[in-house]
Amino acid sequence: MSTRIAFLKGHGTENDFVIVPDPENAIDLPPSAVAALCDRRAGIGGDGLLHVVRSAAHPEAKDMAAEAEWFMDYRNGDGSIAEMCGNGVRVFARYLQRAGHATEGDLAIATRGGVKRVHLAKNGDVTVGMGKARLPEGDVTVSVGERSWPARNVNMGNPHAVAFVADLAHAGNLYEPPPFSPASAYPDGVNVEFVVDRGPRHVALRVHERGAGETRSCGTGACAVAVATARRDGADPAVTGTPSTYTVDVPGGTLVITELPDGEIEMTGPAVIVAEGEFDATWLTTLAG
Amino acid sequence: MSTRIAFLKGHGTENDFVIVPDPENAIDLPPSAVAALCDRRAGIGGDGLLHVVRSAAHPEAKDMAAEAEWFMDYRNGDGSIAEMCGNGVRVFARYLQRAGHATEGDLAIATRGGVKRVHLAKNGDVTVGMGKARLPEGDVTVSVGERSWPARNVNMGNPHAVAFVADLAHAGNLYEPPPFSPASAYPDGVNVEFVVDRGPRHVALRVHERGAGETRSCGTGACAVAVATARRDGADPAVTGTPSTYTVDVPGGTLVITELPDGEIEMTGPAVIVAEGEFDATWLTTLAG
Repeated sequence: MSTRIAFLKGHGTENDFVIVPDPENAIDLPPSAVAALCDRRAGIGGDGLLHVVRSAAHPEAKDMAAEAEWFMDYRNGDGSIAEMCGNGVRVFARYLQRAGHATEGDLAIATRGGVKRVHLAKNGDVTVGMGKARLPEGDVTVSVGERSWPARNVNMGNPHAVAFVADLAHAGNLYEPPPFSPASAYPDGVNVEFVVDRGPRHVALRVHERGAGETRSCGTGACAVAVATARRDGADPAVTGTPSTYTVDVPGGTLVITELPDGEIEMTGPAVIVAEGEFDATWLTTLAG
Repeated sequence: MSTRIAFLKGHGTENDFVIVPDPENAIDLPPSAVAALCDRRAGIGGDGLLHVVRSAAHPEAKDMAAEAEWFMDYRNGDGSIAEMCGNGVRVFARYLQRAGHATEGDLAIATRGGVKRVHLAKNGDVTVGMGKARLPEGDVTVSVGERSWPARNVNMGNPHAVAFVADLAHAGNLYEPPPFSPASAYPDGVNVEFVVDRGPRHVALRVHERGAGETRSCGTGACAVAVATARRDGADPAVTGTPSTYTVDVPGGTLVITELPDGEIEMTGPAVIVAEGEFDATWLTTLAG
């Protein structure tokens, strides 16, 4: 491994990432190195890592190279592989713009979840297509302490339970996963969103992400909440032929979610690069022995 | 404020710091900027910030300039002022060495808690004088869930309750401060250490830091534990005239604590710089605007 790794750090609504530019896919990034870079105390710190590689230079992305020049080789903070991350794609696009690899307007980015369509707006916001929501039938209940609520089951590729509450404080400290029933609704666990109204087509959420606890932002969670709220409000773009747009405040900022008549969901919000530097990987090499 | 702030990031047993070199005290670092730099998701991230200033250039350190060339203007992660931080001083010394301002051997560093004596060892370890412990009389009890333990009251300038337990897992998740009694023992709350034996003069701890929750390392906590363990083992350097040395494993690494016959306590351990770069403070200026 290189002894010094150039990095940037950025975030989208405080979902944060270590960015490692590596156009020719020349940097060896085993899980241990990713975990070390993402370690918040012994490394730089991030929810995940965005390895920036030309699609043509990466075996997993070569077939997408004609359509998307750059591949987001996304890694979770523990070093494991993930297919996609909506806030990650937005920060990835902002990096490409900063590096001169992209300009305002439309952009295609290769990911393990396929080619994603992104839009870089003049005001700095970045929009990414998040796919379609599925709304499985059946009543679901989530609870925190003595309180419980009916919840809407929304699947964005990952499972969500969306509960409308009177006060976000009722969600408690969210240290532990909120219990849900029936158990059969989510055999692999679930992301739980607690939602309050803030105004017309404007809500706020707190989220417990499966395996991660309470987080500052969850892209798929914001989409699930927008769809669940639209249905609660009687809005369904597939029926009306009109896009439905909701502003969703997350603890780390604000996202705008639009559902199109064909079911596609677009997520728009800020994406910023806050720092740039070099990571000293000497001791990693030592560790790897 | 400058639009770009040069920084480094380092840690001592995973107690981590953003380091801002500023020899002539020219960078404006209001609490909002410190909090932004130390924000783990929207900034660089750190338990605190080490502002590196020549003592002669800082009004709070001018009187120490003859004795210590450099002043550790220490800030807590929330931007507030703190007098001292033992792991911070060790990382500060490592930075001075890296920057060519210090060499192996003895070094004096000015802090708001006075001039601190530091030793930079050939093997990379850094030793700092942590002052003396006081051991207030009186029985103290701490508890977690159904379990409770007698604890030793140790004051290192801040209050500690040291409990010897059979298994560190008995401390639970340490999300909340462990209850203690009597309430009068610690009117302002307390740092609680749970300790197990690992071998002769070798212990391991988990710690709940007052106001911060469970942390990866606590310098004063490791000192309190070494003194409490020595007394439990019948060792008191003031009586025997012989230094007492304990190895203390903390979650983020290993510290070696030596108590001298005059009561002075020295803490030795690793201190590393892991990254170096520039922070983009443009948006801070905008916020402050």
